[in-house]
Amino acid sequence: MKELNTDVAIIGAGSAGMAAYRAATKAGAKALLIDGGALGTTCARVGCMPSKLLIAAANAAHAAAPETGRLDTFGIRLDGTLRIDGTAVMDRLRTERDRFVGLVKKEIEQFPADALLRANARFLAPTRLSAGNTLVQARAVIIATGATPTLPDEFAPLGDLVATSDTLFEWPALPTRIAVFGTGLIALELGQALSRLGVTVRMFGKGGSLGGLTDPAVAACARQTLGAEFYLDCDADVVSIERVQQGDAARARIVYRTPDGKHRDEQFDRVLVATGRRPQLDKLALDASGLALGKHGVPLFDETRMQCRFGKDSRPASDGGGDGDPAPVFIAGDVDGQRPWLNEAADEGRIAGTNAAAWPDTTSFERSTPLAVVFSDPQMLMCGARFEALDPDTIVAGQSSFDDQGRARIEQVNRGLLRVYADKATRRLLGAEGIAPHAEHFAHLLAWSIQRGATVDELITMPFYHPVFEEGVRSALRDAMARLVETTHCAPPSLADAIGG
Amino acid sequence: MKELNTDVAIIGAGSAGMAAYRAATKAGAKALLIDGGALGTTCARVGCMPSKLLIAAANAAHAAAPETGRLDTFGIRLDGTLRIDGTAVMDRLRTERDRFVGLVKKEIEQFPADALLRANARFLAPTRLSAGNTLVQARAVIIATGATPTLPDEFAPLGDLVATSDTLFEWPALPTRIAVFGTGLIALELGQALSRLGVTVRMFGKGGSLGGLTDPAVAACARQTLGAEFYLDCDADVVSIERVQQGDAARARIVYRTPDGKHRDEQFDRVLVATGRRPQLDKLALDASGLALGKHGVPLFDETRMQCRFGKDSRPASDGGGDGDPAPVFIAGDVDGQRPWLNEAADEGRIAGTNAAAWPDTTSFERSTPLAVVFSDPQMLMCGARFEALDPDTIVAGQSSFDDQGRARIEQVNRGLLRVYADKATRRLLGAEGIAPHAEHFAHLLAWSIQRGATVDELITMPFYHPVFEEGVRSALRDAMARLVETTHCAPPSLADAIGG
Repeated sequence: MKELNTDVAIIGAGSAGMAAYRAATKAGAKALLIDGGALGTTCARVGCMPSKLLIAAANAAHAAAPETGRLDTFGIRLDGTLRIDGTAVMDRLRTERDRFVGLVKKEIEQFPADALLRANARFLAPTRLSAGNTLVQARAVIIATGATPTLPDEFAPLGDLVATSDTLFEWPALPTRIAVFGTGLIALELGQALSRLGVTVRMFGKGGSLGGLTDPAVAACARQTLGAEFYLDCDADVVSIERVQQGDAARARIVYRTPDGKHRDEQFDRVLVATGRRPQLDKLALDASGLALGKHGVPLFDETRMQCRFGKDSRPASDGGGDGDPAPVFIAGDVDGQRPWLNEAADEGRIAGTNAAAWPDTTSFERSTPLAVVFSDPQMLMCGARFEALDPDTIVAGQSSFDDQGRARIEQVNRGLLRVYADKATRRLLGAEGIAPHAEHFAHLLAWSIQRGATVDELITMPFYHPVFEEGVRSALRDAMARLVETTHCAPPSLADAIGG
Repeated sequence: MKELNTDVAIIGAGSAGMAAYRAATKAGAKALLIDGGALGTTCARVGCMPSKLLIAAANAAHAAAPETGRLDTFGIRLDGTLRIDGTAVMDRLRTERDRFVGLVKKEIEQFPADALLRANARFLAPTRLSAGNTLVQARAVIIATGATPTLPDEFAPLGDLVATSDTLFEWPALPTRIAVFGTGLIALELGQALSRLGVTVRMFGKGGSLGGLTDPAVAACARQTLGAEFYLDCDADVVSIERVQQGDAARARIVYRTPDGKHRDEQFDRVLVATGRRPQLDKLALDASGLALGKHGVPLFDETRMQCRFGKDSRPASDGGGDGDPAPVFIAGDVDGQRPWLNEAADEGRIAGTNAAAWPDTTSFERSTPLAVVFSDPQMLMCGARFEALDPDTIVAGQSSFDDQGRARIEQVNRGLLRVYADKATRRLLGAEGIAPHAEHFAHLLAWSIQRGATVDELITMPFYHPVFEEGVRSALRDAMARLVETTHCAPPSLADAIGG
């Protein structure tokens, strides 16, 4: 058994792990990445990038599709038909995807040769790992093993008919009919894209949620808008799922009841399961780490330091210190079960890497304002505090419909609803949820404003060009302003009123 | 002759005049709008709205056009041809345009019946106007007469072959070949849109400028990018312009030399002149106002109060006060020759209306950060200070190319360059110029950041989702940051570095 000594051992060479590596080495530490799986990051291999590639093709097809009538309304005639070449769609997706993966791998290759150990690591002690035939002794360890799609047992009988986001992008071509299980970000992005690429889609959710939206008004608008495009039941009554043979081909037979009580018995050539993701912890032998574990066995951690702590009893006495003390173990990225977005994985990696290098002198970092986008069309946004986390008595909600918004109407994309939440006492913007055309862009405007603690009064004095989608944001802010005025029974500051009113 | 007394007389019922009316009446003043021309605002009738409608159709056609190869690359096959129905394009444009104009007119109709005098006004004295058969005596006057396209004499021989933005939207159908004179915002927006709608376009500029860009690197990128789509010479050598007869039809014959010295003699069925706009002052008899006049005869004014001042000598002695005193006359909108954008016209109208109502107790208002967008594709943005107005010794310029930007590549719109300017001493973002996909959205992020005095250090800690076009903004900010570090020879703040780096 070979033995390696390093300052910072990082388990997982994905987005978080690589960010941690860069931060740790930048801080002067010696760092080692340990990964026995596929390199190239979840984001580039099976996440953000291939999904956006599928969506780009889908939205291009949708924009030109005769059946929407959009081109025709503009006065543009398609003499002929539009045909989706599913093989070409998937080939282009993979070519571009592989290019992104290649860029990531190239970056890893530029690390020193001994920076990456290609093996699965498991804990022997808090800072002692076994990885293949190597023993790694570190000053600090970072867990950055990512997450993986869950595949509930009920789908086991379907065998190779089932795809998750880990396997869908390897399809040689597009299916004809697909059942999508889940109504979260991944299900929505991929399901709508497939629908726009000519695949018949049935989307089945559980519990009624949609894309993570927590504001009932926005969620209702989203259900209606997306449900007009493909079959969408956010709280589906699925009676049975089985694999059947149709001539030479296997099919998934799904029996379900529609919201209005109709009984349906349908067959699908593919099933996409996007019901959730679980942290990849099973190979880590976390028991030996002595860490305090929380929900789903994820180590408890301080999200401003990305630092784990020792558990009661399980903590090795030889390491000194008391119950629940901070451990020389850090965590970053999707494995921590929070903020499953690339930008957060990178932030967390940087924090973990910086602190692991400095251990025990760790620093508390201010985290970014949460910013989530679902690349459906219209897109969904969730910025800052979620509606469900806010006390309705202490906030006002300003809202703006995009159904008749000027620019959106010009572009024939006038659908959606944006709601912004402001604190009655401080008049600060706290959060926003919405479904709207080009929402990914407002999401940044709103999240940046929330992060710096901007008040609604100030925001309505900001410049808005014309005619822009952002004027819909201003309408929502003005509505919030009016409600703040009602609430406080006092006039708004005169400058804001004169300039922004 | 009828005589009317009012607190605030507003000459011009366009965007600025209507905003002034609302602000003045809100402040408790009695206000009178005076307008003898077409109602409905420049923006809705012949400006922002119809141009965006033309562009929306053009970009939809371009996105589906087989010759760009974009759909094909996505794997979407067009079996047949795409045909532009020019009559339908213009009809839809006018239908939607008329709807926007109707909304504006409806708003005017909701003003009290005596709020609008349908006549052209001229000054008899600073606060005394003649309008048709009415004499108007006001406490304060607001000039909000807008601007109108210039039509240089050299185009006179072309007669009805010439269009300006005032007349183009009335075309029954699209021309086959058009010569566009001008390379400013209007020429670019309309010229590129016509090109994408199948019209052969030759665009001739003077002096080399393009879209108002002042950063040579950005302008060069813009020339190259747009020049790849249609003939574009920003400093054209036009030898002759004449009207000729071709069978039954008249044509514009234009002889010009290409930048590489080739002699061309071409005919066009339409000519668009978009060489500039001049303030509409000729009917105002400004001599009688006693105002100090500047360039092009535009009254000099304080842009934080939108207030004009009296001139030397020309000022009526009976009004009291000394040379150059503030006058009870205000100005707002395109007529003032500055910031010719709708949002600024509205801001200026509000400032002028508020101050005219309060005269002589006027207030100085902080103006918004300049924010200009050209709706070309890629779009152009200019925020805050223009590059040409900055001292190169006191700033750094950070830049980012969109030629290989991740999301832009996914969408096949990867072209462009963004440059951001930051002050070496304060590290604040001062301005930005760029040509990039979806630049209208970054323009808001950047202008808002400039307006609040944000530093580059802070901005790179702001959340950026992934994969988004805004990551190109972050790249430019990081580049600026690196140059600031080089400049100051000191390390950047550690938080910014760890989180944003």
